[in-house]
Amino acid sequence: METLRVALGERSYPIHIGAGALDDPALYRPHLGGGRVAVISNPVVARLYLARATAALARAGAEPAVEVLVEDGEQAKSWASLERVLDALLGARLGRDSVIVALGGGVVGDLAGFAAAIYQRGVPFIQVPTTLLAQVDSSVGGKTAVNHVRGKNMIGAFHQPAAVIADVGTLASLPERELRAGIAEVIKHGFALDAQLVDWLEANMAKLIAREADALTHVVRRSCELKAAVVAEDERESGRRAVLNLGHTFGHAIEAGAGYGTWLHGEAVAAGMVMAAELSVRMGLLAPADAARVRSLVERAGLPVKGPAMAPDRYLELMALDKKAAQGRTRFVVLERIGHAAARADVDERLVREVIAAASPPAPAAAAH
Amino acid sequence: METLRVALGERSYPIHIGAGALDDPALYRPHLGGGRVAVISNPVVARLYLARATAALARAGAEPAVEVLVEDGEQAKSWASLERVLDALLGARLGRDSVIVALGGGVVGDLAGFAAAIYQRGVPFIQVPTTLLAQVDSSVGGKTAVNHVRGKNMIGAFHQPAAVIADVGTLASLPERELRAGIAEVIKHGFALDAQLVDWLEANMAKLIAREADALTHVVRRSCELKAAVVAEDERESGRRAVLNLGHTFGHAIEAGAGYGTWLHGEAVAAGMVMAAELSVRMGLLAPADAARVRSLVERAGLPVKGPAMAPDRYLELMALDKKAAQGRTRFVVLERIGHAAARADVDERLVREVIAAASPPAPAAAAH
Repeated sequence: METLRVALGERSYPIHIGAGALDDPALYRPHLGGGRVAVISNPVVARLYLARATAALARAGAEPAVEVLVEDGEQAKSWASLERVLDALLGARLGRDSVIVALGGGVVGDLAGFAAAIYQRGVPFIQVPTTLLAQVDSSVGGKTAVNHVRGKNMIGAFHQPAAVIADVGTLASLPERELRAGIAEVIKHGFALDAQLVDWLEANMAKLIAREADALTHVVRRSCELKAAVVAEDERESGRRAVLNLGHTFGHAIEAGAGYGTWLHGEAVAAGMVMAAELSVRMGLLAPADAARVRSLVERAGLPVKGPAMAPDRYLELMALDKKAAQGRTRFVVLERIGHAAARADVDERLVREVIAAASPPAPAAAAH
Repeated sequence: METLRVALGERSYPIHIGAGALDDPALYRPHLGGGRVAVISNPVVARLYLARATAALARAGAEPAVEVLVEDGEQAKSWASLERVLDALLGARLGRDSVIVALGGGVVGDLAGFAAAIYQRGVPFIQVPTTLLAQVDSSVGGKTAVNHVRGKNMIGAFHQPAAVIADVGTLASLPERELRAGIAEVIKHGFALDAQLVDWLEANMAKLIAREADALTHVVRRSCELKAAVVAEDERESGRRAVLNLGHTFGHAIEAGAGYGTWLHGEAVAAGMVMAAELSVRMGLLAPADAARVRSLVERAGLPVKGPAMAPDRYLELMALDKKAAQGRTRFVVLERIGHAAARADVDERLVREVIAAASPPAPAAAAH
């Protein structure tokens, strides 16, 4: 077991990483207070891991008072699911001293975290991520949200977890497609923040896809270290944290344009990163050979390098709705070199259109779809 | 014009108090950033003051991009209204750099403040309170929420405003009943925190009810000073801030039991304060003569001193749902002397039942109903 720490003053918290972490009552106990516990999950994850989480909580002295299962998939990250979770918490009469446990992937974590943020003006929650994407990215940093028909993550809150318990053993049961979608966020951390991680991924992609335990542990730990440092510096994304959105401006447009759940978030981010790298080249910031490294690593992870067939105008319209827009200008995260991203609001729309035109296949047939 | 300050580090903000404050663009300008503005109000307040607020915002360089009116009254502080406000903000494509202006009483302020707390994970908002209750209490301190069928303010967030602009001139149009409901919170501030304010109210209640400008300004300023000091000490109500809930445990049960909107919040708090004072006497904490001062001041403000006809079991059931409950125990705010309240979780249920039995009229006929 390894433990990292997100340094945020009184909101600091540990990230525990290791096989079997899910079953360790000592990891839950310090965060349970004296109140009651609710577990939020989905039917697929619950079938595999709910009994184990419940047993660990019981040994920690807090048998869950209520379990709420939401649907599997991005569509479940909705206002309606949020209402259902809150109704269940209130129905079970959970007090302000209760604790919410999010057992699942990014959808469960974002939804349960947001419910925790607004239940009785905020209760603590524990992230128990069971997908690679959640372990390397979404469970750390306190971004919680639900989607809206007009955009992804449009309603939400910054609410840091009390702890993150990342059991890499749970990744054994992850569908192949979701594993690859998680790798997209690891690739993102490399290109945005850490050239060494890019080197490591280029050397070890096969081990990662084969789910070798050491490889999985390495990318979870390194991703959490990188993300924890950025979050500690800029908790609410008023500056530097924006670099973590590499690939997300194009990616959100792809997800929204294709309809939530058609593309996995990680798949959209992968194609978005390739597009962001191309944009960086056209802006004269990045060497074409470095953009080729982005494309090549995305391809080797079995992830799409192009968006769906979608007109440039539609992309631009969807990107203008992105939360990252400021004073009417869409912000893009660009690469200045391998391991160094930067947010820019001064991007020439003509260049963006060129990138989209070059990256959109004429017919609806993207790599992974 | 007078300006107080709520000292909360980077979340500090000014409270501007004075006749005509509503019209002063200089009070809005520092908080508008470069983004767009939404005004949330209700039809009654909008008819009286929306044009003036809009004109001041336009002179400050920020003509509102969207105006959303919710129904008047406590029923509007609902999940459904919240969804409608969020849909309107998204429909107008307001970015993360937008500002929300809450123009109205406590319902509008709590609802608009909560919408601001969760819109794109949080945007700034300006409180422009137009009722006495909102000016002396709810617009200051960052508590935002909506009600749930299972309890008042059950879903919400702490989200401090960027500024409070309290125009005492708007109190001229306030219905008599709402004026008195606002006075209840002033009385609360006196008994909970400031014996001198109690003395002042005993000497000047007639001037206050006659809406003399100096009297209104005095109670708004003094209430804001008292509340700002408590909030600066304990922003998220983990300790001392609980004293501001004097009368609220009984009061919330009265509001919920009677059906939201039947009793005004201030009326329920008034009766709740009298009950809390009686409880304090029965607990041996407060002299009967001091409890008599609570009752007498509440009566002189034309406020109810008793709850509705409701069985003690029903009171206890509703109070157990209160957010202030911890580890299954209902917390009560009691008076230890005039000007000094304290939160207690160790209250004997038998004493609570006695107080309820003594304070509940046998037939449904309360003072103000």
